[in-house]
Formats: sequence, structure tokens, C-alpha cells
Amino acid sequence: MRRTGKHAQGTICYTISPLHTPNDFVEMAEKLLDLGCDSICIKDMAALLKPQPAFDIVKGIKETCGEDVRVHVHVHATTGVTMVSLMKAIEAGADCVDTAISSLSLGPGHNPTESLVEMLEGTGFQTKLDNERLLKLKKYFAGVRPRYKEFLSNITGVETEIFSSQIPGGMLSNMESQLKQQGAGDRMEEVLAEVPKVRADAGYPPLVTPSSQIVGTQAVFNVMMGRYKVLTGEFADLMLGYYGETIGPRDRHVIELAAKQTGKEPINRRPADLLKPEWHELRDTTVGLPGSNGTDEDVLTYAMFPKVAPKFFTTRAEGPKSVAKDPGAPAAAAPENGKPASPSSVRATVTYDVKLNGKTHKVTVAPVK
Amino acid sequence: MRRTGKHAQGTICYTISPLHTPNDFVEMAEKLLDLGCDSICIKDMAALLKPQPAFDIVKGIKETCGEDVRVHVHVHATTGVTMVSLMKAIEAGADCVDTAISSLSLGPGHNPTESLVEMLEGTGFQTKLDNERLLKLKKYFAGVRPRYKEFLSNITGVETEIFSSQIPGGMLSNMESQLKQQGAGDRMEEVLAEVPKVRADAGYPPLVTPSSQIVGTQAVFNVMMGRYKVLTGEFADLMLGYYGETIGPRDRHVIELAAKQTGKEPINRRPADLLKPEWHELRDTTVGLPGSNGTDEDVLTYAMFPKVAPKFFTTRAEGPKSVAKDPGAPAAAAPENGKPASPSSVRATVTYDVKLNGKTHKVTVAPVK
Repeated sequence: MRRTGKHAQGTICYTISPLHTPNDFVEMAEKLLDLGCDSICIKDMAALLKPQPAFDIVKGIKETCGEDVRVHVHVHATTGVTMVSLMKAIEAGADCVDTAISSLSLGPGHNPTESLVEMLEGTGFQTKLDNERLLKLKKYFAGVRPRYKEFLSNITGVETEIFSSQIPGGMLSNMESQLKQQGAGDRMEEVLAEVPKVRADAGYPPLVTPSSQIVGTQAVFNVMMGRYKVLTGEFADLMLGYYGETIGPRDRHVIELAAKQTGKEPINRRPADLLKPEWHELRDTTVGLPGSNGTDEDVLTYAMFPKVAPKFFTTRAEGPKSVAKDPGAPAAAAPENGKPASPSSVRATVTYDVKLNGKTHKVTVAPVK
Repeated sequence: MRRTGKHAQGTICYTISPLHTPNDFVEMAEKLLDLGCDSICIKDMAALLKPQPAFDIVKGIKETCGEDVRVHVHVHATTGVTMVSLMKAIEAGADCVDTAISSLSLGPGHNPTESLVEMLEGTGFQTKLDNERLLKLKKYFAGVRPRYKEFLSNITGVETEIFSSQIPGGMLSNMESQLKQQGAGDRMEEVLAEVPKVRADAGYPPLVTPSSQIVGTQAVFNVMMGRYKVLTGEFADLMLGYYGETIGPRDRHVIELAAKQTGKEPINRRPADLLKPEWHELRDTTVGLPGSNGTDEDVLTYAMFPKVAPKFFTTRAEGPKSVAKDPGAPAAAAPENGKPASPSSVRATVTYDVKLNGKTHKVTVAPVK
């Protein structure tokens, strides 16, 4: 990548556990730089990065790896502490931070850009952003946002429970609906208590896609069917080392169960080394797909999303599809049971006494199924 | 008050203007302590206190007035920067900060308590709050909150526009409805631009009740009827010094207009010195009101709220009234045109072909008016 003149950023997924210390993240940064990365990003997907570790990690990277190593801090807002973490990271020398325009910010999203600009006043640090132009952006996206209402998170406040469960809000609601579908909506508390145990057994992986889903689903399985009675294929692979190393040792007993269930051996090497070169084969398959244009991008798209890519190739000529909905339409304003209701339709069975030619009839009107 | 063994806290309303500096607030704190206050509160009602001035003011008070002077910092969350300001105030030595349990926090409210507790980890500062108990409180009030939906602010994100207009969100929506009632909903931008001008003419009072309403309403009048063509009685009093001193000089021309319109003289002295002793008169009136119990509290209630107190005295025996509403009730869930609609009622005129004894009739069903 660097040979082609591009910038390679090495990203560290931040997490907390009894084993993780700020210095571990500094060491990870050193390793990434040794691999040839141009800059380091600290990615805090679950808003677990508190102000003091934010300061210590950024300071540590600058002191150990050099002041000129560019450090990028990416935090989400979910727990309500990370705006302060950005301030401390900036004080420690962070070069770049991620935010979102305020009308699309907060909840499980990022901290608001305009607030960050204002926050820095008088501190000796400054952005070069123009408040007037930011306000225009804010207003524009404030108008766009309601059109995507169905995709918005229910979290508008903060969720500090994440510090103990490490389960971000989005994953929480997924788990809740998984449990409800199995008629076990009342067992959420047990699952929340199980997640940290499963994570400990797996050697404390950071909970970030896909490990968050893998650990979360296994916790649901453990609660529903008994601890490790059934392992998901992905959790077995995680235990056997097929997702790479973890900071802590993995539980021997669960590794044995995983080996037994899958017939696979545990590994200690880089999992990607086990893959056979497959570019030429993927290229041949991709080129044969209707709508594929034969570019490297199309081969990569197929490699990453083999189920979705074929349909995408045949329909992309139609252009991007908007999933936005007009929030002003009555159908969108008054949905019932998930089904939009026309304002003039009858929404339940109603019986009327209808007088017709002097005679009263009982008439029942029911909505069309 | 101190003679009776109570604690007297002197409060400084924080604001920003071309004239206000952190040192002005330190001097105000000194004056309040000279008057005999036991502690100082910095009250930031509009979330204008940024991290650096928060640090500078608290540090300044501690250095000038003594480390043992208790400093209390009260900020709202509206602009999205004040959680960071609390961190910096704490670093500067603040003794006490105000927060709200997360399920009642943010928007124009306070910053979330749980986030503040977590924010301090590893910093050397700590609260003595128990996370488990806070979580119980959070859950309890998460259930209470929807019952007061009609009183909740529309602001769930942040509003950094306040830094220029200094108009807090609540006041904004008041102004909008004032303008709409006068058929001038489209002149909001003009009013927003007028507010800082009126505030400058009035000598930069902090915009806090009642000065926020006084300045805001005058700005609306200026836009609707021409600048200072009509002064409200309160704005005239503000210009003439009847609300006390302001940090900046007040505009001579507007003072003259105010004197002319009201027939009052401008004053430079403490306005309360002009009041005649009125306790005995107020006591006599209060004791004569049905339901009054003759306590000093009742006299004070009547003194402060002469219009509301008489009704309160006669109805207080009925106990406190709940204004909560059941958010699950269909009436509250599906209001239409402000009118609650029963889920089984027809909501518009519908025509059906109804077959009755083999004969088809056109039947029109309309909602009951």
C-alpha cells in the first residue's frame, strides 16, 4: 500500500479488561509502526476510553514512538465521557480526532463537531473549522435525519452500563430481540452477566465486530442451553485461535470442547497464513458474474461479500437507492403494528347500526387483510 | 441567615460578552465573600462556560480568596462542552459539581451523574457514589420520564448557536411561538440577530430569568414594530437601573426613551433600597386569605406570587397534584390534530360498497363530529 503512495494507518481497538493497561496499547502502536504503518488510530468503538487512559496512551505513544508519529483518536459518545477523553487526548498531543456534525451526533454516534470547536477556545489548541459553515451543515442534516428514522438508535442519552458489560447499545438491542424471538425476553439480565464470563474464557478479546457478535451470541447460547453445551462455529474458531491471538490465555476446557465439536486443531500461528492464494480463482468467478466490470474493486467486493455481490453487480446500473422516507407522510406518521395505515382506512373491526330505507341493519366493517 | 446557623451560598451567573473576563467573576466572588457568603456557586444556566474559563475562574477564586473557599460549579449540558468544563473545574480545585441521573440528563438539563463518576477514574479525583445504586435510580427515572413527555424539551442533541445568540433552547421555542402567534414565524432570524444588539444596549446583563425574557421580548418588539418604538415596562426598568447595575454602560438614547415613556428617573443606587418595609402589610393580607396558615413561609409565598398564592392556599389541603400522564394509553399514543383518537374509530369519511341481502348499497361512514 505504501509502495503505491497511499497512507497506511494502523488501528488499535481500545478495550478494558483486568489485563489491559495503557502500556499494552503503546506496545501495540510500536508493533504497528514496526510493520510499516504511517500513523496510529486508537479506535474506541464502545466509548470505553476514559479521560486519564486517553491521556496516558497518547502521551505514551508520543514518548515511546516519537512526537512526529501521527496519533488519531476515534471515540463514540455512548457513555457520555469521551468528549472529555478527546480533550485529554488533545492535551497529550493527539493530532486528529473524529467527530460528527451535531445533528447526526451523540448516542452511539460521535461527539458533536461544533462542541469540539468551542471546547478548545482559549486552550492553545484550535481547529480551522468555520462556525458559520458548520451551522449550515448542521441545519442541512437536521432535515435529512428524520428521513432515516427507522435506522436511528433508541439511545439518545448515555449508557454507562457499557463499562461493566462492554456491550454497546446496538448489540444490546440485537440481543434483546434474539432473546424475545426465543420467548426468553426475561433472561436479558442473565445474558448481561454471562457476557463478561464468556469474554474472560476467550482471553479478553476487544468486543468489536465480529468478536462482539461471537461473544454475545455464545453468551445467549450459554444462558438458553447451559454453559458451553453448544458452541457456535465462530466461537469455536475464536477459542481455537482462528481469529488470532488474545491478550489473555483462553480457557483450556472450552478449547477442548471446541476442538471436539469442530474436529479442528487449535493453532498458535497467524490464521491468514493458512489461506491459499485465491485471487485468480476469485477473479475468474467475478468476471463470470453478470454486471461485473472486471476491476480489482469488483473482485474485492465479491471476495468480501460473496452472497451480496452478484445482486449488486446486476442492479448497480440503476444507481444508488435511497432508503429515506418522507417523515411528513401520514403513512409514516401513524404506523400501527409495523404496517403503515392510510388515514382513511378502518383500523379495526367496527359494528354500526346503519339505517337504510327506514330499516336498521347491523353492519360490520373490517379492515381489508 | 448565617445568624440562624444556615449556609449562605453566593451565586454568580456566568455569561460571556466583549466585556466579561474570567477575572471579573473572581472579583464578583470576592465581593460575595465580603458580604458574608459561606461558599461560591458559579451558575452557568445557558451552558456557556467553556473548559478554559472554567479552569481559570475556579483557579482564580482559590488563589485570590483562599483554597478553603468552597467552590460549587453548576452547568447545563445544552452546548455539549460543559462535561469537559466540569473536568477542568475539578482539576482547578472545584469542591462540588451539579449533575443529573442519566435518564433525566442532557439536552437543556445537566450532565449525567454516572458519566461524571466514570470520567474521574484514574485522575486522582473521585466521588463516593455507588454505581449499582445509581443504575437503580437511572432505571427508575427512565420509567418516570415518559409520563412527563409534554414538559420535555425538544433539544436532545446540542445547540452551540447559544454561544453567539446566548439564547438558551427553552427561550428559543418561546420566542418562536410568540412570533408565530403574531403571524411572523418567518422573522426568527431577524430576532436572533437583534438579541445581542439589545443586550449590548442594556449593558450586557447575563441572560438569566428574568433578564433573558426581558431582553428577548424587547428584541421581538424591535423586529415587529421598529427598534425601540415601543419599550416593554420591564425593559424600560432595566434601562433605568431598576434591576441593578450592569457590567457595561447602558445606551443613553434608549435610557432617555425609557424615562420619557415611563415618567421614571434613572437610578444608580441599589433598587431594593427604594422599597418601603412591607412585611407587616403583607402579613395582614396573607392572614386574611382563606386557607393561609399564618406562617412566615405563607407570607413569603404571597409576597413572591401574589396572583397564584390565594388559589394555592385554598387547594393545598387536597395535596400535591400529579401532572403525569400514562404514556401507554392509546389516547396519548396516537393523537391526531391534537385530538386523541380511539383506535377503533373511523378517522375520515369512507365510502364502502356494502352487499346486503344480495343487493349492493353505497354506504358512507363518517367520524362523529
